[in-house]
Amino acid sequence: MTKEEINAQIQRAIKNVRNHNPLVPSITNSVTINFVANAQLAAGGSAAMVYLPDEGEYLAGISKAFYINVGTLLPVYEESLPRTCSALCDNNCPWVLDPVGIGIGSLRTKLIKQMKEFKPSVLRGNASEIIAVCQLWELRADGENASLSKGARGVDSTDDVLAATEAARAIARYTGGAVAVSGETDFVTDGTTGVLCYGGSRFLPMITGAGCSLGGVVAVYCAETSPFIAALTAVTIYNRAAQSAEKKCAGPGTFQPHFLDSIHRLTMDTEQNFHAEIKII
Amino acid sequence: MTKEEINAQIQRAIKNVRNHNPLVPSITNSVTINFVANAQLAAGGSAAMVYLPDEGEYLAGISKAFYINVGTLLPVYEESLPRTCSALCDNNCPWVLDPVGIGIGSLRTKLIKQMKEFKPSVLRGNASEIIAVCQLWELRADGENASLSKGARGVDSTDDVLAATEAARAIARYTGGAVAVSGETDFVTDGTTGVLCYGGSRFLPMITGAGCSLGGVVAVYCAETSPFIAALTAVTIYNRAAQSAEKKCAGPGTFQPHFLDSIHRLTMDTEQNFHAEIKII
Amino acid sequence: MTKEEINAQIQRAIKNVRNHNPLVPSITNSVTINFVANAQLAAGGSAAMVYLPDEGEYLAGISKAFYINVGTLLPVYEESLPRTCSALCDNNCPWVLDPVGIGIGSLRTKLIKQMKEFKPSVLRGNASEIIAVCQLWELRADGENASLSKGARGVDSTDDVLAATEAARAIARYTGGAVAVSGETDFVTDGTTGVLCYGGSRFLPMITGAGCSLGGVVAVYCAETSPFIAALTAVTIYNRAAQSAEKKCAGPGTFQPHFLDSIHRLTMDTEQNFHAEIKII
Repeated sequence: MTKEEINAQIQRAIKNVRNHNPLVPSITNSVTINFVANAQLAAGGSAAMVYLPDEGEYLAGISKAFYINVGTLLPVYEESLPRTCSALCDNNCPWVLDPVGIGIGSLRTKLIKQMKEFKPSVLRGNASEIIAVCQLWELRADGENASLSKGARGVDSTDDVLAATEAARAIARYTGGAVAVSGETDFVTDGTTGVLCYGGSRFLPMITGAGCSLGGVVAVYCAETSPFIAALTAVTIYNRAAQSAEKKCAGPGTFQPHFLDSIHRLTMDTEQNFHAEIKII
Repeated sequence: MTKEEINAQIQRAIKNVRNHNPLVPSITNSVTINFVANAQLAAGGSAAMVYLPDEGEYLAGISKAFYINVGTLLPVYEESLPRTCSALCDNNCPWVLDPVGIGIGSLRTKLIKQMKEFKPSVLRGNASEIIAVCQLWELRADGENASLSKGARGVDSTDDVLAATEAARAIARYTGGAVAVSGETDFVTDGTTGVLCYGGSRFLPMITGAGCSLGGVVAVYCAETSPFIAALTAVTIYNRAAQSAEKKCAGPGTFQPHFLDSIHRLTMDTEQNFHAEIKII
Repeated sequence: MTKEEINAQIQRAIKNVRNHNPLVPSITNSVTINFVANAQLAAGGSAAMVYLPDEGEYLAGISKAFYINVGTLLPVYEESLPRTCSALCDNNCPWVLDPVGIGIGSLRTKLIKQMKEFKPSVLRGNASEIIAVCQLWELRADGENASLSKGARGVDSTDDVLAATEAARAIARYTGGAVAVSGETDFVTDGTTGVLCYGGSRFLPMITGAGCSLGGVVAVYCAETSPFIAALTAVTIYNRAAQSAEKKCAGPGTFQPHFLDSIHRLTMDTEQNFHAEIKII
C-alpha cells in the first residue's frame, strides 16, 4: 500500500464511523474508563462498558468491534475475559487488546497467555508491553532487538518504540491483524508493512489513559475498516489532535478537554480533510 | 399544577438544597461515577458512593435520598441492590433508579425486575429504557406507542421521547412517584400531569454520563421536594446549563467542565432567578 | 525544624520527584481514581492502580511508596488490603492511608482497625476522619478536643481541623510517621512539630477527590523524602495550586483542569521557586 492509498482508506474509515455511529463495547480498567468512553464518543462511536461474563458474551454477539483492556483486574475477569474473547472469535468480531500492566500478578499473566488463542485483531501497547506479549506468547521475532527489552515498570514503558518493531511484526504475522506500538513516534504494522506515525504532544504521557483511550478508538475504527487501517486511523488522529490541543492548553489538566475537542473536530467535522503524517518503512 | 406553581416549587427546591447540602449516596456505574459525584456537588448536594450490601443499607438508613444506577454491574450487586432497595423502602427514603443497559445480561434483568416491588420514587432513562422497564414490569400503557419501541442498543436509545410518554405515565401511576424520559426534548410525568422540557445541547449526548449525572442530581432534589418536582428541577437545570455551556465550549471535551460550572452557577448563586422552560401537556 | 529548613526540604523533595519520576501504586476508590492518577502524574510521579491481592503485594515489593484509600470497598479488598499492607511493612515501603468513609460498614471498620498494626507512614483525612481513626485505634489524645467530635457524615467532615490536632499528634506519635488533617486551614504533624498550612480555594470542597488526590500526591513525595516533609510538600503545593486555579476558573468544573495545570507548573517547572505558606505551632 502506498501512503496515498493508506490516506484514502483512513478518510473512508473516518467517514464511515461518522455515518454509522457503531456500538463498540469495552471491558476496561476503572482508572481511565470514563476517558475511553468519551474518546470513543468524540470519534463518533457509541460506548458500553461491562464486567460480567454473560454481558461480555452478549455484547460480543451484537457488536461490530470490541475493546479489552486488562488494566485493573477484578476477580470476575477470570471468567469474563475468556468467555467474551471466545464469543468474539465465534462471531468473527474484531477486537483490540491493551495488555496494560503485563507482568503484574498471576491472573494477568494467565489471561494474556490465554488470549493468544483468541488472536486480537489489534494489539496496542507501549514498546515494553509489546515485547512482553511477544515473549509470553513465545513468538519468534526475526530481529534481535526484542531481546534488548529493559522490561516494563508498572504501566510505563522503559523501551523505545524502535526496540519493539520486530516483536510487533511477529505478533501481527501470528494474529493476521495489526499491532500498534505507542511512543514518541508510533509504529503500526500488519506484519508486512510498517508505518511510522509522527506528531503527538509532550502532554500525552502526562495524562492517564492516553494509551487506553487510543485503544478504545482503534476498536471504534475496527467496526468499519481493517485492523491495520483502524490502528493507523486512530493513531494518526491522536497524533494530530494532541498537536492541536497542546497549542490551546496551559498544562496537562486543560490538555485533556482540548484533546477530546480536537478528536471530535478532526473526525466529525465534515469540512476537515484529514491527512495522516506517516512514513512507510 | 400550573406552570407558575411548578416554577415556584422548583425555586424552593433549589434553595433548600443550597441551604441544607443533603447527603445523597449512590450505587452507580464506574464509567461515570466521578461525573455523577461532581454534578451532585455542583448542585449543592453531598455525594458518597458504595458497593457493599451493608454499606448500602447503612446509608439508606441515614440519608434523605439515594441514587441507584445499574450501568456496570459487578457480582456483589446481586446482594447489594436488593438489600439497599429494601432498606430504602423500610426507611421511606426516596430513591432514583437509572435502568442503564436494560436487556443486557441476566443479572441486570433480574435486578430491575425485583425493583418493581421497591417502587423507585423517580425512574430516569431514555425512551427505549423507559419502554423496556414498562414491559419488564408488565405494566399496561394506555396508548399504543409503547408497542412501537425499536428497543435499546447497548446504552443508547433508538426511540423518540414521545414514543415513551404512555409507558412513563403507566410507571409513574404504578410507583406513585415520577418518571423522567431524556431526549432532545425531555418528558417528566407523575402519572397525571405530563411536562415537556426544552433546552439542552447537541453536546450532551456526546459526553458519557449526561444521563447518569442527571439521575444523581434528581436524587439530590428528592431529598428536599417531591419526586415530580425533583425530576423537573434537575431536568430543567440540566437543559439550561447545557445551553449555557455550549456557548462557552469548543467541543464535547471543554463542554463538560463548563457544564458543571453552569449547574453550579444556576443552583448555588443566590443572584440567579431560575425559570424552567417547560410546557404542560 | 525551622520554617526555612522545612522549605528547603520541600524544595528538595519537589526536585527529587521531578528527576526520579517514582512509581507510586495505589489501591484506591473508583470515584476519584482517575483524578488521583492525573494528580500524581502532574506532580511528576508515575501511577499504577490495582485491586488483586498478589498484584498489591508485587507492587509493594518494587515501589518506593504506596497509596491506600478505602473509599469504595469491594469484596476483594478484604484480602487485598491486609496482604498489601503486610508486604509494605516487610519491604519498609512508606505508604499513605486515606480512611475515607470511616464508620460506614463492617468491612471498612475491620480493615482500618487491622491497619493499626501496619502503621501507615502518613494518615491523611478530614478532621472527623482523623478523630475517628484515633478512637478506633484506641489511642490517647492528650488534649480534650478529640472528645468533642461531631462525627463524620458520609465522606464529609463535620469537625474543624483544630478539633483534630491532638488526635493527629497521638496517631503520628504511635506510627512514627506523620498525619495530615485537611480543612480550610490544614494541619500537618509528626507528633512533635505541628504545622498550619494556608491557602486553598473555596472550590476544593466542591470537586470530588480533592482529598483523595492529595493523599496520592503525598505518597508520591513519600518516595523521595520523610513522611512529615512528604505531607507538607503535597499539602502546601495543593494550597498554592488551588489559589492559582481559582483565579483562572469560572466554577468547580473548570477549576479541576486548571488545578492540575497548576500542580504541574509548581512542581515540574524548574523556573518556579516554591515557598510554602506555613506556620509552626
